[in-house]
Amino acid sequence: MTAEPAFERIAIIGMGLIGSSLAHAARANGLAKHIAGHDSDPEIRTRAEAVAGLTDSLHADLADAVDGADLVIAATPVGACGDVAKAMRDHLAPGTIVTDVGSVKGAVLKAMQLHMPYGVHLVPGHPVAGTEHSGPEAGFADLFRDRFAILTPPADADAAAVARLVAFWEGLGSNVELMDAEHHDRVLAITSHLPHLIAYTIVETASELENELEAKSRDDDVVTTREVIKYSAGGFRDFTRIAASDPTMWRDVFLLNKDAVLEMLGRFSEDLTALQRAIRHDDGDALFDLFTRTRAIRRGVIEAGQAGRFQYTENGETGD
Amino acid sequence: MTAEPAFERIAIIGMGLIGSSLAHAARANGLAKHIAGHDSDPEIRTRAEAVAGLTDSLHADLADAVDGADLVIAATPVGACGDVAKAMRDHLAPGTIVTDVGSVKGAVLKAMQLHMPYGVHLVPGHPVAGTEHSGPEAGFADLFRDRFAILTPPADADAAAVARLVAFWEGLGSNVELMDAEHHDRVLAITSHLPHLIAYTIVETASELENELEAKSRDDDVVTTREVIKYSAGGFRDFTRIAASDPTMWRDVFLLNKDAVLEMLGRFSEDLTALQRAIRHDDGDALFDLFTRTRAIRRGVIEAGQAGRFQYTENGETGD
Repeated sequence: MTAEPAFERIAIIGMGLIGSSLAHAARANGLAKHIAGHDSDPEIRTRAEAVAGLTDSLHADLADAVDGADLVIAATPVGACGDVAKAMRDHLAPGTIVTDVGSVKGAVLKAMQLHMPYGVHLVPGHPVAGTEHSGPEAGFADLFRDRFAILTPPADADAAAVARLVAFWEGLGSNVELMDAEHHDRVLAITSHLPHLIAYTIVETASELENELEAKSRDDDVVTTREVIKYSAGGFRDFTRIAASDPTMWRDVFLLNKDAVLEMLGRFSEDLTALQRAIRHDDGDALFDLFTRTRAIRRGVIEAGQAGRFQYTENGETGD
Repeated sequence: MTAEPAFERIAIIGMGLIGSSLAHAARANGLAKHIAGHDSDPEIRTRAEAVAGLTDSLHADLADAVDGADLVIAATPVGACGDVAKAMRDHLAPGTIVTDVGSVKGAVLKAMQLHMPYGVHLVPGHPVAGTEHSGPEAGFADLFRDRFAILTPPADADAAAVARLVAFWEGLGSNVELMDAEHHDRVLAITSHLPHLIAYTIVETASELENELEAKSRDDDVVTTREVIKYSAGGFRDFTRIAASDPTMWRDVFLLNKDAVLEMLGRFSEDLTALQRAIRHDDGDALFDLFTRTRAIRRGVIEAGQAGRFQYTENGETGD
């Protein structure tokens, strides 16, 4: 096949898990003639250089990376998107498409739109994909395959630019959905942000308890060290995987999608209190009914093909 | 190898995931001359009969199953263990070892001990292993391999009986730990029971929200159906897997380990409220510090070899 690549030059800003996966995936699918990378952190740049075939050029200077690019993807934590937009605005040619990959869309749109020069097309995006690993070594070309990529073009977005970006994500193997930023932020608050918040909390709670048990065991001269981790196969370990996600990324998500997250947290707390009450009052029927309903939802996830690509192996661990 | 099997006859009471896995595993490892099964539910017995080579004999009558057994394993929901002990007490020969597989140990010990005839050795147990699947078809021989099996022998337990049961679980590939029942129940409340409770709750919260969104979308004539499930790859789906676990089993766990579960729930709620407050007051440093601490705990789980046996495959899903 000798079809022309969809883009002359893609500039990827941020060489973390998503940025490096984008570089691998764009190359594997022949979507760009040239893939330029940038990361503001010299250590990350050194590590990115060590990953064979990651980018065609890797730049210390953001302006050099975006120079001549017809697609610029900000793959930084969402809190940095505004600064990235500001730093590159004088180096963007008319017609360039600018997008991002952040888990919050309303705040990103607001922060970036402000700095977009006339004729540059801002179309924010969010691939619903990731792992708990970070950094340029963690990326792989199949990360976005069969996952959803949500684009949240503003109401006045250029239709041709949106269509090109849709084709780009489809070229990476994603299923593309369009919605407005506010709706995105509400849906993701419940499907992604609240689960991460809960996972971080329970790992913290368990960790505190373990420290107490350890202090007690030293007093009693009984060995109970690391029991919380030891018996984590009973359910806890699934939470530790989620709670190992990138701290900067998630700090930004909770601060920038504050209203929706606090609303979902309020709903969750009400439901948890109702369950706590059922346990305290030995209401077995209420527990049984709830556990039967939630089981049906798992079937929905499996039927929707979103249950993940896990399978038993002898050892090792990976999740997506 | 022609070593004599460790037990003449093992009776497994309850042909669910754990009971059927025990049957497969005992056979695969040559641990019994005869494997007898029982389930009080005729439908489960019919399904168990259809699983090739599951048991040597399958009994509608509990007494027939335990007759002549030197090891009896109650693999029922923990709430049924007392009734099982009562129903079989007149059919147990002196020297028989009786154990169970329940996730709560204090209440099980109390409920079963009462009915144990003189000379029968009760040694409660708990394999920290499972999947979200239930029923006789869900069992497999490797379920317990490299997982922990916790035994909680009472203070006056027969040492030889405990040693035989330790050898049995080691024969299935498990790492065996001994501890007292109360300590078990506290450790499992945080590593297993609370995570399940949280997962059930968040799936409920999401489900309610989705129903609201659907009702709204019908009013607005906009399609938003099943978005919560659709975008579950962002974190939510890990919770749906846990929340698909057996409803009867988990109802019993929460009712029978009530005190420890309510204590852990109280600790969790305090921590969640603190995090909620940090979000509301834009305290990014507190969030970042917490997320960095929890990440280190994940490394502990991986180092302890308890991270699971997941690996990417093209599709399909399984977890352990």
